Amino acid sequence: MTEKKWSRNVALVGTGMSKFGAFSDKTSRDLFVEAFCDLKNYVDKGFDPKRIEALYLGNFSSDQFEKQAHLAPILASWIGISPVPTMRIEDACASGGVALRQAALAIASGEYDVVLVGGVEKMTDLHIAQVTEALGTAADSQFEIPAGFTFPGFYAAMATAYMAKYDAPKEAFYHVSIKNHKNGALNDNAQYQLTIRQIMESKKERAAIKGRPVPEWEDEMEFLSDPKGNPNIAWPMALFDCSPVSDGAAVALLVAEDLAQEFTDKPLYLIGSGQASDGALPDRETLASIPAAKLAGAQAYRMAGINPEDIDLAEVHDCFTIAEIMASEDLGFFPHGEGWKAAMQGKTARNGDRPINTSGGLKAKGHPVGASGVGQVVEIWKQLHGIAGERQIEGEPRIGLTHNVGGSGQTCVVNIFERRD
Amino acid sequence: MTEKKWSRNVALVGTGMSKFGAFSDKTSRDLFVEAFCDLKNYVDKGFDPKRIEALYLGNFSSDQFEKQAHLAPILASWIGISPVPTMRIEDACASGGVALRQAALAIASGEYDVVLVGGVEKMTDLHIAQVTEALGTAADSQFEIPAGFTFPGFYAAMATAYMAKYDAPKEAFYHVSIKNHKNGALNDNAQYQLTIRQIMESKKERAAIKGRPVPEWEDEMEFLSDPKGNPNIAWPMALFDCSPVSDGAAVALLVAEDLAQEFTDKPLYLIGSGQASDGALPDRETLASIPAAKLAGAQAYRMAGINPEDIDLAEVHDCFTIAEIMASEDLGFFPHGEGWKAAMQGKTARNGDRPINTSGGLKAKGHPVGASGVGQVVEIWKQLHGIAGERQIEGEPRIGLTHNVGGSGQTCVVNIFERRD
Repeated sequence: MTEKKWSRNVALVGTGMSKFGAFSDKTSRDLFVEAFCDLKNYVDKGFDPKRIEALYLGNFSSDQFEKQAHLAPILASWIGISPVPTMRIEDACASGGVALRQAALAIASGEYDVVLVGGVEKMTDLHIAQVTEALGTAADSQFEIPAGFTFPGFYAAMATAYMAKYDAPKEAFYHVSIKNHKNGALNDNAQYQLTIRQIMESKKERAAIKGRPVPEWEDEMEFLSDPKGNPNIAWPMALFDCSPVSDGAAVALLVAEDLAQEFTDKPLYLIGSGQASDGALPDRETLASIPAAKLAGAQAYRMAGINPEDIDLAEVHDCFTIAEIMASEDLGFFPHGEGWKAAMQGKTARNGDRPINTSGGLKAKGHPVGASGVGQVVEIWKQLHGIAGERQIEGEPRIGLTHNVGGSGQTCVVNIFERRD
Repeated sequence: MTEKKWSRNVALVGTGMSKFGAFSDKTSRDLFVEAFCDLKNYVDKGFDPKRIEALYLGNFSSDQFEKQAHLAPILASWIGISPVPTMRIEDACASGGVALRQAALAIASGEYDVVLVGGVEKMTDLHIAQVTEALGTAADSQFEIPAGFTFPGFYAAMATAYMAKYDAPKEAFYHVSIKNHKNGALNDNAQYQLTIRQIMESKKERAAIKGRPVPEWEDEMEFLSDPKGNPNIAWPMALFDCSPVSDGAAVALLVAEDLAQEFTDKPLYLIGSGQASDGALPDRETLASIPAAKLAGAQAYRMAGINPEDIDLAEVHDCFTIAEIMASEDLGFFPHGEGWKAAMQGKTARNGDRPINTSGGLKAKGHPVGASGVGQVVEIWKQLHGIAGERQIEGEPRIGLTHNVGGSGQTCVVNIFERRD
């Protein structure tokens, strides 16, 4: 693929999100309105919603989860921006990141100046068995599903391949989980706001209250190593390796670069974007890496004219802990086979060389599928503006990257944002 | 909305489609490959599929119909174009037309030079009650579905409003159906290749063979007026007012205008494109028109710098016969309240002033939802190239329009193509 030049550049002038979690009293519409109202807090010069010229909505499967397809015009109507053009973009769990990229291309084309990107998923209304079935439609029904796997199984196969190839211990995954829960505990919008240690202590307390034997876990590593604390889902992926089933929405407001200052003094600039696809898992040469992620990342770096070492922080698609470790390699932050060591050494912690998933990631912040890719952008916005509160990383970060994966790697999209002021 | 200028223009260099129909032995993948192989027949200078840089796929709900979401990267893999970026665009029955518009914007942005647009739906694997339920997810689950309607009901309400407002007889709808079946009978790819008269005669013959009383229908109008020939579905919409449940796929190859001659000596140029959205049916001021269609059409005409009278032929979204009549008014071909008369006077027939749905339309060609908007472009390609066989219209048509509607009008997209050579 030769590199193309966009006809004009695109800026991000604000983001918003609902709380992520399980909300039995809220629909996609409610969550989306919540995220849209939050946006107004961050577009610091304010804006008239009538300036929005289109809505690009990332959503995986409201048709299965809520019996509501054709969601984009409905949400536009609910936030009062009809009759602007609207559409839903679906690329499984990468829907949100792809929606953002398409919205950016639509601005670059000259057709729109101001575009709202949304992501939403309302997953918790169904029985968990139905959720598993719905999520399973993101896998290849002819070449993956017949293997008998659901998604924990696919990523377990990748984790097994990774461990075998690089001699990585299962403990490396625990470090990802502990870190992301620590970060999520500092994020008011996160689904899980407890650290693994707090979860461990609360389990001990509950056992004591109920008069059961109190487990003798000394620390998080002991807790996560014990199937009673951290039951296996699909070995080596255990409960605390898996992101949850979530409800949530997020939005991002993109505008043509030359208009950005009308909305905020501190826009971010979309300096790189890349996307790639792949066939089913059995087609791949390796399971210890996601080829589409490498391609999407490389494309985004080329467009931005930067290297992986220029990235100050990244929100990556940790649907499972192994996915974060593979991403940290596929994106070039660490050599292949070194990502697990970096995780164990704390290099990806908030105070590490390469902070990853300061928001808590999909693991702790939650994974409302279509919203996740846009939710990542919310964290980049906050960190690059120094408004991430207790989880703010030091050193005035200027460049942040988002990495969003669909299925077992059939889609990957990477977007890179820069603060210039 | 102010009018914007695209950074560069877009050409159509070929189209392809599968047969539309009910194929118990074919999946979406098979149908899509069939359509892609057909494309090669029309890109007259040939092309290397490796030149394709992205796939924009219109699909309404493969997740419900085939338990297969995340379809775009799978189809890319099946036609051998991985790892190009791929995505599914969903706007209910307008998915195909919207996918084409987004692909065009992506080319205009400078990011891609050559983009494949696809549309596909495989609907006939489910029981018809499940199909009705799946299609129902395209309606608003909070403000439309609770009224007790499925789609024939929504369009019946519009037909009733239209008849009341403009004193239109039910017979006007029969003329649309008769015309579209006549056109479909001349289209090898159509689901129904019998005229209404042939269907009537075959019903008589079957009655005779089975020793039942033979109905005394003299002509199509008598047949369609008789509930034994044309049973009511949702009055005034009867069986022959409704498009069928279908399987099918269609593709279109879009390229940057300056590259078009590398693919064909006879490209078409996308000279106009418009899209708009709307809220649920109860929000509308009128049911006798689709406001989003008027907006989308007006936008496309402004971009093209032409008027409705410049359109030589149109493929419009006749999911129900009333929809074709409303479209013929919303697009400005006839004044409001005159569309039904034009239909009765034969003005929209192949040899009329304003040929509409020469392909047979959704009514006779079939309506594989996500494919329909792209299938419309296939007909425009053939007619503007003079290769539509027995259904070719006269007078060397140069400008053709497609009109694709989602839901009960929540989405509408209009694209206009011109032949210049």
